[in-house]
Amino acid sequence: MSADETEAGTVRPGGRTARVRAAVLQAAGDALAEGGFGHLDLADIARRADVGKTTVYRRWRSPTGLVADLLVDMAGQSLPRTETGSLLNDLQANARLVQRTLTDPRQGALFKAVITAATCDPRTADALRRFYDIRIREWAPCVQQAIDRREVPEGTDGHEVIRAVSAPLYYRLLISGDPLDVAAADRAAEAAATAARAGAYVPRKQKAAP
Amino acid sequence: MSADETEAGTVRPGGRTARVRAAVLQAAGDALAEGGFGHLDLADIARRADVGKTTVYRRWRSPTGLVADLLVDMAGQSLPRTETGSLLNDLQANARLVQRTLTDPRQGALFKAVITAATCDPRTADALRRFYDIRIREWAPCVQQAIDRREVPEGTDGHEVIRAVSAPLYYRLLISGDPLDVAAADRAAEAAATAARAGAYVPRKQKAAP
Repeated sequence: MSADETEAGTVRPGGRTARVRAAVLQAAGDALAEGGFGHLDLADIARRADVGKTTVYRRWRSPTGLVADLLVDMAGQSLPRTETGSLLNDLQANARLVQRTLTDPRQGALFKAVITAATCDPRTADALRRFYDIRIREWAPCVQQAIDRREVPEGTDGHEVIRAVSAPLYYRLLISGDPLDVAAADRAAEAAATAARAGAYVPRKQKAAP
Repeated sequence: MSADETEAGTVRPGGRTARVRAAVLQAAGDALAEGGFGHLDLADIARRADVGKTTVYRRWRSPTGLVADLLVDMAGQSLPRTETGSLLNDLQANARLVQRTLTDPRQGALFKAVITAATCDPRTADALRRFYDIRIREWAPCVQQAIDRREVPEGTDGHEVIRAVSAPLYYRLLISGDPLDVAAADRAAEAAATAARAGAYVPRKQKAAP
């Protein structure tokens, strides 16, 4: 039984089940941000959320189940995309949203914890992928609009463009440690928009080695 | 005492110290690739490397010290850059090298282990940053050559271009789980080259919000 199945039909906004879920996911997010995935303990979460231990074990089963449900909740609460009428400005809005999220102390620590857990846990990796799929599907239509405006070539892969905006920001967060500031966000947006305009995200057959 | 300081003056190529270091770092890399940073244990490494436990504790002190020295060794053993005479082909060679490294079963697992350890350990994060600094310094001159050939504008930040080639590949490894294939490498190289030609990596003052 996955967290998703448990959820179906049992959550009424404002109902007790929804309040319990909100309290448990808040506690799980806090615990992840503080100590990482390795310290996520269902009994501790029940205590923090002031919810019965049995309820938490029955409903989420494991730290992995808890993280999967947290990611479902985070995807549902994310902001809708901004529409500015130009690809560069749309991508800049996206990049700045990612930058703000990753530099927020709680959210940044939370994402680091979930991403590192995903490297060694396939179910968490699946849940993380679903989270980003939802976010990317939210933003990719801005590329179709840019195709319609003839800003970028027909066939440009919108999902790939949105991923290209995020990639340098996650690289800074996880690898280089370079400042994750607004300038980095704007540069990521500009590089992706420039490459998209030049047709770099139109899928093509794999080229032969040089 | 850092691993670097210990090393200074004590390593003669082919000497006993060098052989011990090679055996210990090989064992540390194997252990990291198999079980991740959390399972790195100095006594276990000594056993695997067939080296006295005291030697390992005295010289590397902690799992963190061991990982730092492993990264120094990996940076030293990395391949020199390929010079092809065009920015796109140089960046493609770089992207394909990164792609091959991250998809190699041992190396890929090793990088995942070190990157995740770096998210919660500042000394490992420093060691990782030094590793990438060395690799980026090796490749960045291809951008200066492209400036000299007038392929890209004066002032283009070579380090930023090389990071832009890697970022989508690490994003696939750690976040999206999309295939890390040669086509992904070529697309990363092409996007970075295209954006660089259009001046996207010339530093400029931070722009106002739209």
